[in-house]
Amino acid sequence: MSGASPVLVELDERAGVAVVRLQQPPVNGLSLALLTELCLALQKLEDRRACRGLVLTSAVPGIFSAGLDITEMFGRSEERLGEFWRAVQQLWILLYGSRLATVAAVNGSSPAGGCLMALSCDYRIMADNPKYKIGLNETRLGIVAPFWFKDALLNTVGHRAAERSLQLGLLYSPQEAFKIGLVDELVPEEKIQARAAEVMAQWLAIPDHARQLSKSALRKQTLDHLLMHREADIQDFVRFISRDAIQKSLQKYMEMLKQKKA
Amino acid sequence: MSGASPVLVELDERAGVAVVRLQQPPVNGLSLALLTELCLALQKLEDRRACRGLVLTSAVPGIFSAGLDITEMFGRSEERLGEFWRAVQQLWILLYGSRLATVAAVNGSSPAGGCLMALSCDYRIMADNPKYKIGLNETRLGIVAPFWFKDALLNTVGHRAAERSLQLGLLYSPQEAFKIGLVDELVPEEKIQARAAEVMAQWLAIPDHARQLSKSALRKQTLDHLLMHREADIQDFVRFISRDAIQKSLQKYMEMLKQKKA
Amino acid sequence: MSGASPVLVELDERAGVAVVRLQQPPVNGLSLALLTELCLALQKLEDRRACRGLVLTSAVPGIFSAGLDITEMFGRSEERLGEFWRAVQQLWILLYGSRLATVAAVNGSSPAGGCLMALSCDYRIMADNPKYKIGLNETRLGIVAPFWFKDALLNTVGHRAAERSLQLGLLYSPQEAFKIGLVDELVPEEKIQARAAEVMAQWLAIPDHARQLSKSALRKQTLDHLLMHREADIQDFVRFISRDAIQKSLQKYMEMLKQKKA
Repeated sequence: MSGASPVLVELDERAGVAVVRLQQPPVNGLSLALLTELCLALQKLEDRRACRGLVLTSAVPGIFSAGLDITEMFGRSEERLGEFWRAVQQLWILLYGSRLATVAAVNGSSPAGGCLMALSCDYRIMADNPKYKIGLNETRLGIVAPFWFKDALLNTVGHRAAERSLQLGLLYSPQEAFKIGLVDELVPEEKIQARAAEVMAQWLAIPDHARQLSKSALRKQTLDHLLMHREADIQDFVRFISRDAIQKSLQKYMEMLKQKKA
Repeated sequence: MSGASPVLVELDERAGVAVVRLQQPPVNGLSLALLTELCLALQKLEDRRACRGLVLTSAVPGIFSAGLDITEMFGRSEERLGEFWRAVQQLWILLYGSRLATVAAVNGSSPAGGCLMALSCDYRIMADNPKYKIGLNETRLGIVAPFWFKDALLNTVGHRAAERSLQLGLLYSPQEAFKIGLVDELVPEEKIQARAAEVMAQWLAIPDHARQLSKSALRKQTLDHLLMHREADIQDFVRFISRDAIQKSLQKYMEMLKQKKA
Repeated sequence: MSGASPVLVELDERAGVAVVRLQQPPVNGLSLALLTELCLALQKLEDRRACRGLVLTSAVPGIFSAGLDITEMFGRSEERLGEFWRAVQQLWILLYGSRLATVAAVNGSSPAGGCLMALSCDYRIMADNPKYKIGLNETRLGIVAPFWFKDALLNTVGHRAAERSLQLGLLYSPQEAFKIGLVDELVPEEKIQARAAEVMAQWLAIPDHARQLSKSALRKQTLDHLLMHREADIQDFVRFISRDAIQKSLQKYMEMLKQKKA
């Protein structure tokens, strides 16, 4: 990246809308570095009065985000694992609890942590390209989505769809994702940014204060659950991911990814 | 109204069914007076052994109920505001927890508190007239639906639809409302009362005791939430609605309504 | 039955899949004897390392299970009623909390306790025969589904459908059941066992440990609710079912069943 930030922020002060683009090729993997940048950018927008809405999207063709960078979870010290997990939590806390109206413009595949980012926004638009997939597919890697990933999914698609989706680690096509309510709307790929702006205008037509209180009424309990168990959740993650069996699973998966590339 | 009651009650003792019609032109606004009458009528039916079912509908063409009478919230003393809010709570407690089988025959528009009344019944039939709208549109007025409005909506349409619906203050056409499950059935306007009677017969075919226990099993927790925080909820309302910013919002809205009429 | 077990277990060790067939004519009524056999069989499979998945189905044509054997609830001592109810609880605890991937192949009608068994599996396939019905129809008999029946339904079809379904004691055709999500898939009757095997293969493609943790994350709270109130729930059942009014309801129902047969 030669020093260029992997998080491109463009704030239209007149509209009050920031567009945040992830640009960490090849797959916008959520490394500790990217998470740190992204949280910093989100916090700045959160603190900026001129900003009322946020569109989250990708600058990497074909991928929204592949989720957590798997290299951050393999062969790392407990301290580093803990630092990484705290950053993942922080991203979710910022996005899921944002005072801003948030629209995900999912312009590419969005598995695992990528799906979580989309789930944390107020509205999800996905490019209707059958090559793209979205879902919490953790079980396929032999790992388990943490409880707050689960809660965010459950609040979006309901208990039954969440049960099946999480156990099977299902990755959905845009049409399937739309059908179960995992995304709110499908658009042709070339129109996704324009449509995100239109949708945002609809959200910003509502007085901020009333919208924010309504959002909080529906999300506070889910957010508080993590906030109250944040340290325990970090310890759970570190302990789980450090297990020999899990490290071996991750190694296998990484080798498979390398072979795919080659 | 020249002393006529705004709440018309017709009890068919043979069928065990009462039809309650709101008749407070122009929009069945829930004033303190109407709320008091309505709660009294509902309590009487609740206490009357001959009554097993209740159809709630409107005698004012084109409107089910426009919800809380906004003049009750503007420029009032704290004491009066508290009295008003207690009556709103009481209406919901009576309807949502009724031992009766309750069917809403939504024969007109039904925003905000009107929607809440419909949500509190066991079954909702709506006249399929695209001019009619239903929904919790509080945020559009700069105010926020209280938590028990939110809970009643959430129990009906699920978490995701509730999030979007409440934040955007969405008003749905009958077709849209049916699609998200906000109403159970659409019928041509002229058939709504006959259909309500048919549906009621289906509900009354079930032994009361078993039906009531099943209803309570699904609603008690939601009801208890308000019952246990009733005073705090009144204080929250009084404090919130008394704010300068909110009073100004309400004033603007009232002026807009006046201009519409003129 | 001449001593033959009413629970047929066939374990394919290579596939890691057990097929459990209920064979208690005429309707696979859940008597204390059948419950005891079934729980024993389930516990054995649970403890057997070679077993990873379970298909639950019926060997009696046209019926999956008619649910609790009503003769177990009529004219019995409190002690016997308590023993019976504990066995019903045990069946649910085993099925709903199973470490195995569980698929219900619902090849016949499945009211009340039969429906509960299906609801407790991870996936439900139903034979698309319009003569078959499925649902928690307890209120039609004047009784009430216990809270954990309600919770299992609620986790499957959501709050609104559960409210209507439980209050009215609705029995759904396969098409209706599919529409509200009470079953996941419909297949021609002759293909149901083959399809169950296919679906099971999909579930077993996921590493057991990750699948089990995901399942537990979504079911533990519901399970714990019963586990923590198990004795009180037994007392509630015994007290409720012993009431004169309930015993009379059951008697009426049994006489109606006898007349139907004759």
